[in-house]
Amino acid sequence: MDNKPTVESVQALITRGPFHQWLGLQVQRVADGEIDIKATWRPEWVVNPDGGYTHGGILATLIDLTADWALVSTTGRGVPTIDMRVDYHRPAMKGDLVCKGKVVKGGKLFSSCEAQIYNAEGQLLASGRGVYAMPAPKTA
Amino acid sequence: MDNKPTVESVQALITRGPFHQWLGLQVQRVADGEIDIKATWRPEWVVNPDGGYTHGGILATLIDLTADWALVSTTGRGVPTIDMRVDYHRPAMKGDLVCKGKVVKGGKLFSSCEAQIYNAEGQLLASGRGVYAMPAPKTA
Amino acid sequence: MDNKPTVESVQALITRGPFHQWLGLQVQRVADGEIDIKATWRPEWVVNPDGGYTHGGILATLIDLTADWALVSTTGRGVPTIDMRVDYHRPAMKGDLVCKGKVVKGGKLFSSCEAQIYNAEGQLLASGRGVYAMPAPKTA
Amino acid sequence: MDNKPTVESVQALITRGPFHQWLGLQVQRVADGEIDIKATWRPEWVVNPDGGYTHGGILATLIDLTADWALVSTTGRGVPTIDMRVDYHRPAMKGDLVCKGKVVKGGKLFSSCEAQIYNAEGQLLASGRGVYAMPAPKTA
Repeated sequence: MDNKPTVESVQALITRGPFHQWLGLQVQRVADGEIDIKATWRPEWVVNPDGGYTHGGILATLIDLTADWALVSTTGRGVPTIDMRVDYHRPAMKGDLVCKGKVVKGGKLFSSCEAQIYNAEGQLLASGRGVYAMPAPKTA
Repeated sequence: MDNKPTVESVQALITRGPFHQWLGLQVQRVADGEIDIKATWRPEWVVNPDGGYTHGGILATLIDLTADWALVSTTGRGVPTIDMRVDYHRPAMKGDLVCKGKVVKGGKLFSSCEAQIYNAEGQLLASGRGVYAMPAPKTA
Repeated sequence: MDNKPTVESVQALITRGPFHQWLGLQVQRVADGEIDIKATWRPEWVVNPDGGYTHGGILATLIDLTADWALVSTTGRGVPTIDMRVDYHRPAMKGDLVCKGKVVKGGKLFSSCEAQIYNAEGQLLASGRGVYAMPAPKTA
Repeated sequence: MDNKPTVESVQALITRGPFHQWLGLQVQRVADGEIDIKATWRPEWVVNPDGGYTHGGILATLIDLTADWALVSTTGRGVPTIDMRVDYHRPAMKGDLVCKGKVVKGGKLFSSCEAQIYNAEGQLLASGRGVYAMPAPKTA
């Protein structure tokens, strides 16, 4: 890319996605191979009305997209996920979530990235990995 | 459990979850260690307004919950996911999704289950696995 | 490939690898997108001299290579693993192992494959998945 | 445990396993929830006599056991792997391997751990995760 992505430019790209809007994603930091994103709790996230905790699928979604967008300084956009895996560490109670993503190893055809999901108290709720398909280089 | 779960009884359990309602889950078949669930497309699932395809996090969510509820004939309810993994095979375009879950190996403390997600044309879009924590046996 | 791989031709390819020789691999069946391989127990596989069971790393190795060689009818050779995952179902006691691999979804750049490992009694010991990098097509 | 494990005590436990001996494992550092282990290259590790690189199954084995033994300060021994996953980053050429393991989240019933495998030049070759079954607490 000609220009380094910024919090504002990545936020604009992410906000284009209806699902991203529904997740209330707020980009908080963009660095080379790293990203921090906040996700805004909503009542539809709840799996169990008694316990009130957030469905693991929401956490998996956040792992996937945060790991993906950690690549944005190279890819300039979200890219297809080849596969991903999530480890669940603690129940996610009602509240916004803090998502931190990082490139583990960038490559030409595919890249490995990881992400962690924390609650507002800084406790690790889930962590995981994805492998992402890199965009074909532009030919002149 | 005293009573075998039925499509109706499992649907009632699943519908209690607000996130399940949002996903428009319809239980279609319940067998010993197997389940089929339909999920109803909604515009918020879209990740990219140009391509119109469904976010991989929705597919991951469906893998997780379908594999989990494949255990219902043993567990009688949804149980905590320890970890899960998803392979993405084809983009999921606009449309409802058919989810098939199956127990790979049940255990006392944890069980391995798998699930496949198909589109209405029967094409495999994603498949994956989860390991689930089994409920502690009730003591008399 | 011009010629369909046979049990003999795949065995010859596999036997070239010193690690494959050490694992005592015997190709038993090759079909389109499928393979069966037997691995020959040896005392070095044991992790625990009291229990006598085989190390999980041996099972992981067999998952990886069996899933990989399930692609041989397309690739004509072993290809690089991008990532792999293994679920352990039962301890592997002393004895040869039967490994069954299958392509889940073949692709141009990468393919998803799965494999199961059984003992001589036909009990499922471990199962898993890998994603494999496909060879670049030959240009004329 | 009454006594903190030391490099010597963990080395003695690990060396009991015939497969560990075959892998030439040398414990280099043991800390709370962390371990460093060196593995000694041997010609049987090679998958391809032309390329001379080490089979991915060896790397998977080292990920599994290093992540497992990162728990030793809690478990006092190796414990059963429930499932594991490996991302491959670079080919492992001829040479000893440096394996670093760390507990991601310890638990009562199961724990998540990660490991990285480096070559002698400090390049990351593979990394991964496992979930491990914790020993039942001793009852008085």
